[in-house]
Order: sequence, then structure tokens, then C-alpha cells
Amino acid sequence: MAASESCRFCQVALHANYVVFEDELSIAFLDYKPLFIGHTLLIPKAHYETLSDLPSEVIGPFFGRVQLVTRAVEQAMQAEGSFVAINNRVSQSVPHLHVHIVPRRKKDGLRGFFWPRQAHPGEEHLREAQNAIRAALAQITGVS
Amino acid sequence: MAASESCRFCQVALHANYVVFEDELSIAFLDYKPLFIGHTLLIPKAHYETLSDLPSEVIGPFFGRVQLVTRAVEQAMQAEGSFVAINNRVSQSVPHLHVHIVPRRKKDGLRGFFWPRQAHPGEEHLREAQNAIRAALAQITGVS
Repeated sequence: MAASESCRFCQVALHANYVVFEDELSIAFLDYKPLFIGHTLLIPKAHYETLSDLPSEVIGPFFGRVQLVTRAVEQAMQAEGSFVAINNRVSQSVPHLHVHIVPRRKKDGLRGFFWPRQAHPGEEHLREAQNAIRAALAQITGVS
Repeated sequence: MAASESCRFCQVALHANYVVFEDELSIAFLDYKPLFIGHTLLIPKAHYETLSDLPSEVIGPFFGRVQLVTRAVEQAMQAEGSFVAINNRVSQSVPHLHVHIVPRRKKDGLRGFFWPRQAHPGEEHLREAQNAIRAALAQITGVS
């Protein structure tokens, strides 16, 4: 896919600041408003909007880079762990696939994000969701 | 890797409830305390603790399943988007790699999680982090 002149991250791929990694497929740079210092964004250079849009032959190479940069961020920032996340459309500030790679430490204050969690929502609702997802998968893959 | 008798998700791989997808490599099932209904966990059946531990030849196939299940969860739950995330060690409740796939809607209340973000932390700190990550990458890949 060609770079889009109107896409901020297509432009970033050409003129990024604070680059930490770059190859023919992807570029990684520091988020300028990090959750914590070392918070890195890894993007494909080509313009794909979401994870769903990534061609199957690019998935392995791209997530290989995610793994590599995650290891490096953890090591460089002497982190105890990491948070690797993709927002697809909702909460996605720039509509060009980007993976957040965030160094973590225990008690770093991020824990709360994942726990406005609901209590067990009840068998019935879980069963409905299960059936709907299985049906969608069957439709997508053409297998019933 | 063999299943571990002491690992909850190795046991889940054998006897999961609310399974939405399963093949030889991986299994996906509903989180029993979802952020939102349809919140799915996808795990490799073999025991790998974190993203960094996933063998390179498994990355493409595994993240192909992540993409597939993400599409299905979005479609099934009639979501506007999705949140796909991995906690490595910190905030990782079970030390067996699991990918959270969460259907999202605008104004669903999850937005806050990503914005206790800091202001721009200053050139100097960004430059230090950049140099540290580049050095770690050079060490990991053996390229200087």
C-alpha cells in the first residue's frame, strides 16, 4: 500500500523523531506522550488501518518485530514486564495500525486500567456471546 | 513445550468453558470476568509464559489466530472496534501467554485507561530512552 499524504503515521514513517528501530517493513519510535518513559509505538510502514487489515503474509514478520522491540524495551528500561496493546478504531488516535509497547513495573499505577471489570455476567450472556462468536468464525472461515 | 500441571491455562487448554475457537496450536475462550461481554482470551496450547518466549516459527501462526478471532469478536458483538492486549509479567494474572481480545464501542467507559498519560517528558529523557532501546536492540540482534 502506498503512503497516504493525509495519514500522520505514514508521514511519521518518513520523518520520525526518536526512532528506536527501523527496517523495510516497520518503524518504531517513542510515543511523545508516554504512559511511562520508553513507551514505544511500532507501525508497519505501509498504510494498514487496523489489525484486521494486515495481510496474512505480513503478520508473522510484523509480530516478529513486535516481539523483538518488546524484548529491547524491557531490557533497556530495566522493566519488570511490559504491556503490548493495539486499539482498533475505538481509542485509536491515528487510523494507521500501531502497537503500543510499554515498559511496566509493579505498582506503577497502570493496574487500574484493566479492572473496571465486571463480575461474572451470568451463564446466559456468556453462552450467547460464545454462540455469536462461533457463528462469526464459521462465517469468516467458511467452515461450519 | 509440555502442558504444566500447575499452570491454570495449561489446564484450561484441556478443559475450557465457553470455548469460541480451537485448533492444534491455540484455544480461545470467554474471560469469566470480562471488561465487556465478548471479552475473549486466546492462548497457545503449549506453555509459553510471555510474548518474548514464543518461538519465532510460532509467531506468524499464533498472531494469525489473533487476527481471526479479533475479526470474529468484532463482528459477533457488533462492535465498533476492539482492544487487543498482552500483559507480560506485570498485571499478568496467569503466567501463560494470553491475548485479551475485547470488543469496544465509543464511550464504553474504557477510554480512561490509556490516559493517565504524561505530558511530553522532555527531550533529554526521551533521548536517553531512545539510546537505551537502540543499544538493547543492537545487543539482542548482535548488530551494532
